[in-house]
Amino acid sequence: MTLVVNPGESISMPMLYIITPTYKRQEQIPDLTRLAQTLMHVPSIMWLVIEDAEMLNPQVAALLRRTGIKYLHMLAPMPKDQKMRKVKARGVSNRNKGLQWIRENFVDQNGVIYFADDDNTYDLRLFDEIRSVKRVGMWPVGLLTSYGMSSPVVKNGRVTGFYDGWVANRKFPVDMAGFGVSVSMIIKNPKGNMPYVPGYEEDGFLRNLNVKITEIEPKAENCTKIYVWHTQTKKNKAPAKVNATIHGQDNIWTLYQQII
Amino acid sequence: MTLVVNPGESISMPMLYIITPTYKRQEQIPDLTRLAQTLMHVPSIMWLVIEDAEMLNPQVAALLRRTGIKYLHMLAPMPKDQKMRKVKARGVSNRNKGLQWIRENFVDQNGVIYFADDDNTYDLRLFDEIRSVKRVGMWPVGLLTSYGMSSPVVKNGRVTGFYDGWVANRKFPVDMAGFGVSVSMIIKNPKGNMPYVPGYEEDGFLRNLNVKITEIEPKAENCTKIYVWHTQTKKNKAPAKVNATIHGQDNIWTLYQQII
Repeated sequence: MTLVVNPGESISMPMLYIITPTYKRQEQIPDLTRLAQTLMHVPSIMWLVIEDAEMLNPQVAALLRRTGIKYLHMLAPMPKDQKMRKVKARGVSNRNKGLQWIRENFVDQNGVIYFADDDNTYDLRLFDEIRSVKRVGMWPVGLLTSYGMSSPVVKNGRVTGFYDGWVANRKFPVDMAGFGVSVSMIIKNPKGNMPYVPGYEEDGFLRNLNVKITEIEPKAENCTKIYVWHTQTKKNKAPAKVNATIHGQDNIWTLYQQII
Repeated sequence: MTLVVNPGESISMPMLYIITPTYKRQEQIPDLTRLAQTLMHVPSIMWLVIEDAEMLNPQVAALLRRTGIKYLHMLAPMPKDQKMRKVKARGVSNRNKGLQWIRENFVDQNGVIYFADDDNTYDLRLFDEIRSVKRVGMWPVGLLTSYGMSSPVVKNGRVTGFYDGWVANRKFPVDMAGFGVSVSMIIKNPKGNMPYVPGYEEDGFLRNLNVKITEIEPKAENCTKIYVWHTQTKKNKAPAKVNATIHGQDNIWTLYQQII
């Protein structure tokens, strides 16, 4: 690990590898702006922003450059056979690309990996919890399904089950935002990738990593605090075309080019 | 103005008075968390968080204390006659309460007032634009109506009209997030409040302040940049009741108490 010591940053702080899958849409820049402005508070991170696209979005590139965060901006388009499916496993190609990069380039074996979608909400306290993960840590996620949350059930400091309203038949019924795994786990399990199975991405990934329920570390005060929420940004329709006769020579035309 | 000089903060920096109306709902804490983590980057601000409620939400109070931001946490419940209406002018009582507080307690006559709803997205560059306002500044807002944005039309550095897809018959067809006004304007126009007229809150306020279109200062590089978006957080249904027989003694019960 490169020891860059900023104020308030300990030299022994494990690196957080934050993997964010993203794709082009009207809400992409605002969503990434909010996430970036949260991550700008967090020391010792490496942000892997991975687009499901054929070309890097230059607006995303400009945003990343402005943040001052250590980042990687990469592409991982969804494979063609997956694109043809009715129900798609979104973000899988992106996350597996991030895992591959970490396996090949990790610098801190004490580091921790976290999948941070661009529209969730992250309380800054979450990142301290992630950083303390030794193998696999889990914590509650708010605003999920009809249950209003998803969380491990914790009794006497141990995970004894899960409270989660999503699809059945999972060994690990958890949300993508509800766990972190150590870099060493990723290295030791080179086949520990995410499957293209909608609804079972988290479960399949944790199974492929050979995680045992008994080894799960309950975080966020024994899973009694919510530090991350599955907020969703309302989708907007494509904007109406600007009338070039009226606005072809003014600022409205310039703005329009940025939002289409 | 009290001169508290932090690193990177100039002693001559005008104070920003950020007025945020809010109300209790499942998404309130995540929305305010994201906004707080953005405002924590901004020097020389006073954050007026004003709840449409009968009692201050202790979760909001705890959040505000953690931020380190200079803030005020106040109540301004919607008047009963307004509550009975089918279409309500939300946030008006809150914003007028904020204006009243500023009129009575302002410390920086060079300060600027901005209405920042809790679910919008604010690029940090916006705050520099707001701070430079002398009387009334305006800028584009993204993700609004079928037009995909709302902005003053700017020609040769002057505002000549508006591009906005919301209700008609307004002198100032702008969004709440699209303008800032100086403290001195607020002081000079003691009756410059916001009317309880749904759809016409911004227009009525700017008319009550006796703003002239010729005096509008176009910001954000002559209104060619989008630094704020009208993002909306998807509403979630009330969470299913937790079974007390199963979870009455574990962490799920503790979590449930926090989300209802």
